[in-house]
Amino acid sequence: MVKEGPAALPSPGTPTALPILKEFLNQREHLNSESDHSHADDDAHLYNMPEYLTGYHSLSEKIQSRIESNDKFFSLEFFPPRTKGGAVNLLARFDRMREGGPLFCDVTWHPAGNPGGDTETSSLTIAGAALNYCGLETMLHMTCCSMTKTEITKHLKRAKDIGIRNILALRGDPPHGAEDWVPPEDGFNYASDLVRHIRKEFGDYFVICVAAYPMGHPEATSYEDDIKYLKEKVDAGANFIITQLFFKAQTFIKFVRDCKAVGINCPIIPGIMPIQSYDSLRHIVKLSKLDVPQDIMDFVAPLKDNDEAIRNYGIHQTCMLIKELFDAEMAPGVHFYTLNREVATTAILKQLGLWAAAPRRPLPWKMAANHKRSGEDVRPIFWASRPKAYVYRTQHWDEFPNGRWGSSESPAFGELKDYYLFYLTSKSSKEQLLTMWGESLECEQDVWDVFHAYVTGTANKTGKKVTKVPWNDDELSSETSLLKENLADFNKRGVLTINSQPNVNGASSEDPVVGWGMPGGYVYQKAYLEFFTCRENVDALLNILPLFPRINYHILNKSGSADFSNCHKHRPVAVTWGAFPGTEIIQPTIVDPLSFKAWKDEAFGLWEEQWGKLYLEESRSREIIQHITNNYYLVNLVDNDYPKDSCLWDVLESMFAWRKLQEEKSEDQEENNMCVCTQ
Amino acid sequence: MVKEGPAALPSPGTPTALPILKEFLNQREHLNSESDHSHADDDAHLYNMPEYLTGYHSLSEKIQSRIESNDKFFSLEFFPPRTKGGAVNLLARFDRMREGGPLFCDVTWHPAGNPGGDTETSSLTIAGAALNYCGLETMLHMTCCSMTKTEITKHLKRAKDIGIRNILALRGDPPHGAEDWVPPEDGFNYASDLVRHIRKEFGDYFVICVAAYPMGHPEATSYEDDIKYLKEKVDAGANFIITQLFFKAQTFIKFVRDCKAVGINCPIIPGIMPIQSYDSLRHIVKLSKLDVPQDIMDFVAPLKDNDEAIRNYGIHQTCMLIKELFDAEMAPGVHFYTLNREVATTAILKQLGLWAAAPRRPLPWKMAANHKRSGEDVRPIFWASRPKAYVYRTQHWDEFPNGRWGSSESPAFGELKDYYLFYLTSKSSKEQLLTMWGESLECEQDVWDVFHAYVTGTANKTGKKVTKVPWNDDELSSETSLLKENLADFNKRGVLTINSQPNVNGASSEDPVVGWGMPGGYVYQKAYLEFFTCRENVDALLNILPLFPRINYHILNKSGSADFSNCHKHRPVAVTWGAFPGTEIIQPTIVDPLSFKAWKDEAFGLWEEQWGKLYLEESRSREIIQHITNNYYLVNLVDNDYPKDSCLWDVLESMFAWRKLQEEKSEDQEENNMCVCTQ
Repeated sequence: MVKEGPAALPSPGTPTALPILKEFLNQREHLNSESDHSHADDDAHLYNMPEYLTGYHSLSEKIQSRIESNDKFFSLEFFPPRTKGGAVNLLARFDRMREGGPLFCDVTWHPAGNPGGDTETSSLTIAGAALNYCGLETMLHMTCCSMTKTEITKHLKRAKDIGIRNILALRGDPPHGAEDWVPPEDGFNYASDLVRHIRKEFGDYFVICVAAYPMGHPEATSYEDDIKYLKEKVDAGANFIITQLFFKAQTFIKFVRDCKAVGINCPIIPGIMPIQSYDSLRHIVKLSKLDVPQDIMDFVAPLKDNDEAIRNYGIHQTCMLIKELFDAEMAPGVHFYTLNREVATTAILKQLGLWAAAPRRPLPWKMAANHKRSGEDVRPIFWASRPKAYVYRTQHWDEFPNGRWGSSESPAFGELKDYYLFYLTSKSSKEQLLTMWGESLECEQDVWDVFHAYVTGTANKTGKKVTKVPWNDDELSSETSLLKENLADFNKRGVLTINSQPNVNGASSEDPVVGWGMPGGYVYQKAYLEFFTCRENVDALLNILPLFPRINYHILNKSGSADFSNCHKHRPVAVTWGAFPGTEIIQPTIVDPLSFKAWKDEAFGLWEEQWGKLYLEESRSREIIQHITNNYYLVNLVDNDYPKDSCLWDVLESMFAWRKLQEEKSEDQEENNMCVCTQ
Repeated sequence: MVKEGPAALPSPGTPTALPILKEFLNQREHLNSESDHSHADDDAHLYNMPEYLTGYHSLSEKIQSRIESNDKFFSLEFFPPRTKGGAVNLLARFDRMREGGPLFCDVTWHPAGNPGGDTETSSLTIAGAALNYCGLETMLHMTCCSMTKTEITKHLKRAKDIGIRNILALRGDPPHGAEDWVPPEDGFNYASDLVRHIRKEFGDYFVICVAAYPMGHPEATSYEDDIKYLKEKVDAGANFIITQLFFKAQTFIKFVRDCKAVGINCPIIPGIMPIQSYDSLRHIVKLSKLDVPQDIMDFVAPLKDNDEAIRNYGIHQTCMLIKELFDAEMAPGVHFYTLNREVATTAILKQLGLWAAAPRRPLPWKMAANHKRSGEDVRPIFWASRPKAYVYRTQHWDEFPNGRWGSSESPAFGELKDYYLFYLTSKSSKEQLLTMWGESLECEQDVWDVFHAYVTGTANKTGKKVTKVPWNDDELSSETSLLKENLADFNKRGVLTINSQPNVNGASSEDPVVGWGMPGGYVYQKAYLEFFTCRENVDALLNILPLFPRINYHILNKSGSADFSNCHKHRPVAVTWGAFPGTEIIQPTIVDPLSFKAWKDEAFGLWEEQWGKLYLEESRSREIIQHITNNYYLVNLVDNDYPKDSCLWDVLESMFAWRKLQEEKSEDQEENNMCVCTQ
């Protein structure tokens, strides 16, 4: 909204000011008559402004906003996986594809698969995970098939509880083998009935989408009748339309014109299914009951053993199709039937320039998409690498901190009882973790070496690159890489860092490494370090920390029986903030003594849950991990004096130096004792 | 709490690090055993930490905290004035004496003077004004005399509603002439009854103080009986004691020991009445029924026509007395019977070093002392020079913004119907204002010249220094003086500035001009300018502001029918904030479009109320003021790019340059028209 102005005008009062101003004003004269000085309506730029500034806007509003600014969008459709492993992989796919900036995703509904159940593989669970754990605006399909009104309402209520705001209302496919559609008693005949039902039961809570068939539904009496039926669905209360796939741009263009001719004015989004392999083409035919155009068959058939060539052809062909739609200005965006695959869709989006180039972060941490969290703009720094765990442990909160964390009583974090929830599980297998973290551990130094390898991105002693640790399922962020050298050295010496950030003093909010938020702002950070370390180091720290009054520290053991801090019991400390044009100060990260206590249970727990359990009970390796869990301390340090070079490394060096001093003293004492004895 | 550390330690890993560290550690070794690493208990430093961080602490807690840290405090007692003019002067006195940092003040209660009434001169009104408009923790006296239980309860309820938390419970003096005390029916005999009653009706809401007589009450049966009676008052629920005045330190010291001996353990504060003149000495004698010691009489009597000499003697004598009490460690602070005068008390406090040397501002604006406002730490910048008006217009709010202002609906500001409320009235008389602002005004330039004189601190054309304007009853702050040169020039040209601040980029929070808040922090400001100006200038501004996208602006006329802005309707803009050790970001000042609308009514109203009404109706002077009110606009500008030099002056220069351009254009057009005519 606020950009850098033109090159600076000359100083006021200088003789040249007037002619140069004339020049500027002449250039801008055409603007003058156009300027609208009524309050800037930010709604047209919704897609750019984070929701903690604008408040939650429905998908319908977002689509409208993109249409008004002619900013093409894309959406992605997935189906629920069959296994828990498939669910883990699908969520990783959601995370990767989110980087491209989809406007929404949707999840299909298949009554035979217990879609409303609690399993990891149900439609409801997957949709909830996409929304809450992957930060995607999510739409859930809902069909009339095989369900009563009551059951449907129950599912919708559960979707609402989870936070889902969008429903694609379909009649759905009859059960396999039933050629003629027979609605259940107390069910719905038609999608339009379902739409009406949703509006009646839930008012405007849900945004409703309906499906359309640019070539007419296979069971429709005629193309024209099918369009009338579509209008009925829209009049029943649908907000927008997604179409079945089609092969030729003209098919869709004609369809849209025919829709408008009968008074269908809501957005119509073309459905696209990239041809990803020979099999997927057959799949298309089966799903859509459409005939593949001959020219496509001619190209694809000879290549049926060369899926990569087919995929490249599909990418090319899809790009051409979409370009034609965009050039004709007939499509506001595109909806991809991904079939849960990612390569072709991503390639198409990048070629078309729809994939977000260098996505800016609205906040330093990944925001959730649940509307209940739309105002959330501040979190404790401890969960920086574990945002999903944070969402999980706070999902029951009525409201989320906005602006300030505040000096509340102990915020009630849910316990993390199951570290194996599919959205919290590592993407790596047990075997892979063992190769990275050690098939067997002989001593604590072995553990320290794993941390060292992770931080430096170098190989461990078996030559395997360590790409994750129990507290971070991904490699070090680019920001943490700024601290790599220092971190590496201290990790090797038993300061096992699990979270850190450098100090930043007024960097541009557009900085590629540390920037976040709206452009034109300035961001700040206090240097922060969090690590596990042994008792001896903690004793040393408690002795030397008074030398560093600008540091705030907090030290806890697993049980919390040891609790050392110079923080106020209830007062959080800001560690990241930014000043932006046209807004209040945003302060997205804090260090809070109370939340640190909730965090340490999770942090200590991960030793055993993620690492210890890789080994047999009573093995030496397991004992080492258990020894660390029960004897090490979790320490966090904040350097409040962010304009100066961070003194956190001085703190650690002083800690080691103090220990050395103590050792020298006891050696001296032993010598003295011996002397006494010999006297 | 967090200070600058010792000189920097050498870089980590350097060979010299270890010996130097040894040196530091040796120096600090004695500290190591003393360090308490349990959570820093800030309560001991309550008097230093602002209440928006600590929350409200009762006067009782504050006294306890000062005792624990051996930080001597002082308090000031006043009596209600007789006239409205006296009330205005008394409030100005409160403002000046507040600078010295009194722990509290108290206001006496005289049943004959309608002390619980609504007039400007009632005890209740004065106590409420001290609390709400002068930011003083306030105690109200309450006597049993001549009032029934019901009446007393009613007065206490009203005191509670106003926000008063402290009561000095007295029996009080019988009505004049009645030598023997006769309690009313349904009243109280004794102060101890009153104390019990307050606890019964109000629980712990009020802190209760009681009076003591170091030489025994005149009507007491004996000194010892009087101390027993004091104990009864304390046991009935009093929190602390203030004594009657006395002349010799030993009197008080003995008294305190005798109190402790019978088990009175609450704080006992000595009451001090400086001898300010010969008459005041007689007053002392009358009030206290004490005999003035001979040595004092010997000194004072010969000087009875030389009040200044007597006051100087009184200052000296009081300092000696208080020093003796402090040296004996028998007094936690001192309570001054000021008799509503200021010179002697202020001199004594400064000599003793009790007067706050360079008082730091907890926030850039003067905080209110009402406990309901203890969390308030953010306000719109518009009332920077009119904090009393702000308190008045927001007194009905249930809660006050803390942390962020927020994107609320229109905050409901009370109307300012009476500009002559005694706490809003100018300290200058009508005559004084006329000499400053012009006995008569001929044209708008006369008005502009007044602004110019005010901003530069130079004389107006009649040779009179302009020390105030309707929007600011005091001279320019030191911070605004930084902008003086630019302000002066533009004011003279019809940009009538009423509020401004320079940009600040990470100055120390201890900076003497722009610093505020806890030490060790960094403060920031966006450059801000607010002014009245004519329609032609506003037209020019609307044309050139698009050249300055980093500026947020808002322009209103008196009625609000003209409303130009590039701000979001509901989104406030931070203009002052700071980052401090150990806390979240404090953001004490914002610019808010909605509050600006509430402010403009007051800002436009002040033209007429404070200035226009100085002149006769239908006089030219009055017309000029009315013309300005009805035709000028109020403009505020924020330069969001605070790390760069402010471009606000460029904006104004460009505005004038644009006008000049337009004039040249119309001259050219006229010439062309003329040419056409002559063809």
